[in-house]
Amino acid sequence: MEARIALVGCGNVGTALLELLKRKEEYLKSRCGFEYKVVLVSDLMKGTLMDPEGIDIEKVLTENSKRRSFSALGEVAGTLGELMEAARVNVLAECTPTNLNDGEPGLSHIRDALSRGISVTTTNKGPLAVAFDDLVALAKRNGAEFLYEGVVMSGTPLIDMIKNGIVGCSVLGFEGILNGTTNFMLGKMANGESYAEALADAQSLGYAETDPTGDVDGWDAAVKVAILGKIIYGKTINVNDIARTGIRELMPKQMDRAKEHGCVVKLVAGINFDSAKMNAYVMPREVPCEDPLANVGGAANAITVKTDNLGDITLTGPGAGRRETAQALLSDIIRIMG
Amino acid sequence: MEARIALVGCGNVGTALLELLKRKEEYLKSRCGFEYKVVLVSDLMKGTLMDPEGIDIEKVLTENSKRRSFSALGEVAGTLGELMEAARVNVLAECTPTNLNDGEPGLSHIRDALSRGISVTTTNKGPLAVAFDDLVALAKRNGAEFLYEGVVMSGTPLIDMIKNGIVGCSVLGFEGILNGTTNFMLGKMANGESYAEALADAQSLGYAETDPTGDVDGWDAAVKVAILGKIIYGKTINVNDIARTGIRELMPKQMDRAKEHGCVVKLVAGINFDSAKMNAYVMPREVPCEDPLANVGGAANAITVKTDNLGDITLTGPGAGRRETAQALLSDIIRIMG
Repeated sequence: MEARIALVGCGNVGTALLELLKRKEEYLKSRCGFEYKVVLVSDLMKGTLMDPEGIDIEKVLTENSKRRSFSALGEVAGTLGELMEAARVNVLAECTPTNLNDGEPGLSHIRDALSRGISVTTTNKGPLAVAFDDLVALAKRNGAEFLYEGVVMSGTPLIDMIKNGIVGCSVLGFEGILNGTTNFMLGKMANGESYAEALADAQSLGYAETDPTGDVDGWDAAVKVAILGKIIYGKTINVNDIARTGIRELMPKQMDRAKEHGCVVKLVAGINFDSAKMNAYVMPREVPCEDPLANVGGAANAITVKTDNLGDITLTGPGAGRRETAQALLSDIIRIMG
Repeated sequence: MEARIALVGCGNVGTALLELLKRKEEYLKSRCGFEYKVVLVSDLMKGTLMDPEGIDIEKVLTENSKRRSFSALGEVAGTLGELMEAARVNVLAECTPTNLNDGEPGLSHIRDALSRGISVTTTNKGPLAVAFDDLVALAKRNGAEFLYEGVVMSGTPLIDMIKNGIVGCSVLGFEGILNGTTNFMLGKMANGESYAEALADAQSLGYAETDPTGDVDGWDAAVKVAILGKIIYGKTINVNDIARTGIRELMPKQMDRAKEHGCVVKLVAGINFDSAKMNAYVMPREVPCEDPLANVGGAANAITVKTDNLGDITLTGPGAGRRETAQALLSDIIRIMG
């Protein structure tokens, strides 16, 4: 069946998805048997386009590249629900910005789609953090799929690996480098830069925001741990209950001491069990050089999943980039249509 | 739907599958919604058992542990096809030994099942090496699934990652450590052992066979490269056409020189492209210590997959063990019933 895609949120990631769909159209058709139309594009700042026959992606990309609104392309009015019905959408790609307080506006968009039996893929951590169980139940009730590969490790297929790749295998715990910004900074600090210098580097490259709290204090990694705890164990973990230490207080002498120990300092995030008690944490740790996590450089991400039958499996991939995150959406869409 | 499993080949891996199914029965039911009966067990040496109501796995394991034939449990007669029909099998787990010349007896078993619309999972490289396209077409024609996660990297879900995890992403090449025995030996040799000493160690631990040719001359890794080339690119690669150098001729001074270069010697196997020309190879190579493949120790396996949209993804896991390989079969069976 042809995918009839609605894209909501046409920022960096949404735009990258349109580019990917266009660039790989022939490959997707010939190699994956995947055909699509983008029938709805909606962005809070730029406006809303709808065409049941398929929107001209090239034109959207051109307007987008000029940072223009969609008004020249013929905007439409109506609620998202009405427009998704009118355009006969069968999959929503939800790419609005993450809001960890109430998940909005993504949460409403996702509910709107799932309640209509329209499957959803999202890269937005907000709705997962605040309403995971609700959304999974809503999807099930309406015969829709709800996928979210891009929320952790971008397109590196960790979530698919856990849900499908090693299905039947028990996950005994995990530990990963889930925040690329701090990993980049720790690499600089291992080479002698101060925290302030490393932060300035990360900001100049666009890795870190002006207020770096989300990254350097471990909040971003903690949210990902909470989401993985839900996916793997079905447990709701309040992000505020996660033992969380960031990298703000790390001193050069701690970096040096790690080196003396044959280790490197990494900001690791994970879950382990002390008999039946689940411990979720984010903290800087001396990782021995022979550990697969030690060699994860730059803004990359990696995770070691401890299992009952497959020992330790480590998955390493690039960190969050617009193209990587868009690939997560694309893989999810193909799986949904599969 | 309940899985009605036929197990053919009740050696190390087949027995481990029965143990896994039994040990995780409750987990599989409650967490994966997976229920099963083993209705047919057949082994060339031990005999054949069939019961449409479900064979008592405990009894089979007890007889197996005493290295006895199944005669005390009530053997049945008939061709595999007849028995699969009588037992209403819906998935065959094919675990007979690998035979790279003609794929038999596994190839006939798999054909027998697929032609009846019975899905198959196998850990047997032989049938894939000699008849991959035929088997895929036969499965398609009969509405059956044909999976083989265990043939490369045992249960570490590389094949599922390529086919599903990163679906829509193009694989530009790959390089991996696909043979655990030689990786174990190279670890010993890096610590100063001679080739002969490392081989003796590997043989005493059961990693290497009396005739170590398949491992040390790179044949095992080459067969895996050929299978991955087929899966990823749809190309038939003759194993004899793969540029192949093993580790037999490696001298201590080469190991020392690698160390001086900040590298370790690994037996790598992969495919890369020189403009459009595909190069498949197996060879010892100096891998820089910061490469994720450098830290793969002991008998572990790892692969780096180069992609268009996700950069380099590295997957590391344990090497071939009976439990790991059985997990591959189990994951495949759950996917088939999915």
